[in-house]
Amino acid sequence: MTMSVGTVYLVGSGPGDPDLMTVKAARLLETADVVLHDKLPGPEILERIPEEKREDVGKRAGGEWTPQEYTNRRLVELAREGKTVVRLKGGDPFVFGRGGEEMEHLAAADIPFEVVPGITSAIAGPGTAGIPVTHRDHASSVSFVTGHEDPTKEESAVDWDALAATGGTLVVLMGVGKLPDYTAALREAGMDPETPVALVERATWPEMRVATGTLDTIVSVRDETEIEPPAITVIGEVAGTRENVVEFLRNRTGAFEDESATQEADE
Amino acid sequence: MTMSVGTVYLVGSGPGDPDLMTVKAARLLETADVVLHDKLPGPEILERIPEEKREDVGKRAGGEWTPQEYTNRRLVELAREGKTVVRLKGGDPFVFGRGGEEMEHLAAADIPFEVVPGITSAIAGPGTAGIPVTHRDHASSVSFVTGHEDPTKEESAVDWDALAATGGTLVVLMGVGKLPDYTAALREAGMDPETPVALVERATWPEMRVATGTLDTIVSVRDETEIEPPAITVIGEVAGTRENVVEFLRNRTGAFEDESATQEADE
Ligand SMILES: C[S@@+](CC[C@H](N)C(=O)[O-])C[C@H]1O[C@@H](n2cnc3c(N)ncnc32)[C@H](O)[C@@H]1O
Ligand SMILES: C[S@@+](CC[C@H](N)C(=O)[O-])C[C@H]1O[C@@H](n2cnc3c(N)ncnc32)[C@H](O)[C@@H]1O
Repeated sequence: MTMSVGTVYLVGSGPGDPDLMTVKAARLLETADVVLHDKLPGPEILERIPEEKREDVGKRAGGEWTPQEYTNRRLVELAREGKTVVRLKGGDPFVFGRGGEEMEHLAAADIPFEVVPGITSAIAGPGTAGIPVTHRDHASSVSFVTGHEDPTKEESAVDWDALAATGGTLVVLMGVGKLPDYTAALREAGMDPETPVALVERATWPEMRVATGTLDTIVSVRDETEIEPPAITVIGEVAGTRENVVEFLRNRTGAFEDESATQEADE
Repeated sequence: MTMSVGTVYLVGSGPGDPDLMTVKAARLLETADVVLHDKLPGPEILERIPEEKREDVGKRAGGEWTPQEYTNRRLVELAREGKTVVRLKGGDPFVFGRGGEEMEHLAAADIPFEVVPGITSAIAGPGTAGIPVTHRDHASSVSFVTGHEDPTKEESAVDWDALAATGGTLVVLMGVGKLPDYTAALREAGMDPETPVALVERATWPEMRVATGTLDTIVSVRDETEIEPPAITVIGEVAGTRENVVEFLRNRTGAFEDESATQEADE
């Protein structure tokens, strides 16, 4: 390694509200030479990155490499030019963020790097909607899981039976499209169809929405409310405690939350 | 509710490095009238709170109420005096932080509140040690669980069999003391005794330490290294990927990590 190699910062941007970036992430966006990002950090945060530093690595359809291969390669290239590089990721870099792969790629290329955790949408999504992921009376564990895989595939890496058996809160990321599949899998695994479920769309963004139902009703709630990605699915008793608190929960704009979407969504 | 009631902010301080506080948390520590805290945010963050605003609610041994009852009562009392109150909690308020209970207590007393998520030690602890809690090749889920409960108790709310069966990463909080019990429970549940395990003590604090072993060896590693609370236990293949990256991982002080503790701990 020569003295001129730059450092790569693997930085989580948090769920989208710029106020929920860490002090360190906010500072690095100012001081870095280049910021590699995709769309997930959200418009408000991306706007803060000076135009001349921004490099969107989110889409490279039709290119020679997959987006991930391109990003890995680009990080090394820029660091070898002596640049201070921020790799900005939505939420936390290590929660379904492929930060682990990037870290391994950097180490294999002898590039020094630093990890700057961010607030994951898996906790802040439920939290800012008034849903605690753990609760002394309701959940002694919480599991984050990808909803992207097909639960009917035999080689599925996600064991919904085991997750149901934990008895804890389940938080599904990338889980809007396959909601019918994994809610069915959980019911088949013996989970009570009355188990409360909440969908939190664009958590902490100005247009954040929340819709609630049960394991049985949530698919039709999703369809009626037209909840879209990015959204978090929270499954478990804790999702039902929201109704006890939401009247006094203020959102980031300082106004009390408009409950219309939730009211419609409940049935 | 009268116009004079103050707002309570349930704020996560992150794992301890003041740079990992959110922009919003850092600002609220300046602007709030009172900050109620315990010891978990750590010395560096507590030092930043102006002395005249600080109220330690962490210990009330021998008092009329439990610490939690006292805190609940004090939050309501201060808000009714019209104060802007920060309830500062280590990590995130809703990850084994009793934020859910405080939120319910505030709502029941008609006190408006806002949730300000923080970076949980359950993700940042492993992350800053070079361990991604999820990884495309190693873990499609991650579960956070309390190690505080006795796994041999019949009424234990934690199902270690189910957690082992998820096949995902397990992150245990409050799990230094009962490490022998739950590692035994996981082995009995059929988890491979060679499964990598890491202990991350005082994550992101200046004196952060990491020790690594396997499900079989980690108890003696803990004893030799004298790892103490607060610490995070990470169990799963991802804990083993650390050795691929740690040489190039820089810590918060900018120096490359001193690996001596880890070297000793590995066997
Ligand atoms: C590839 S994963 C990355 C997760 C990210 N690393 C994190 O920690 O939040 C993308 C998924 O994260 C979730 N997500 C990210 N930001 C979100 C937000 N602001 N609101 C709701 N869900 C979000 C959605 O489930 C989305 O499909
Ligand atoms: C009552 S729980 C609160 C967790 C906190 N709400 C969070 O999200 O990090 C206390 C446990 O959190 C973990 N913890 C908190 N801060 C930590 C740190 N800086 N390093 C390692 N573990 C920590 C330890 O397992 C500790 O026993």
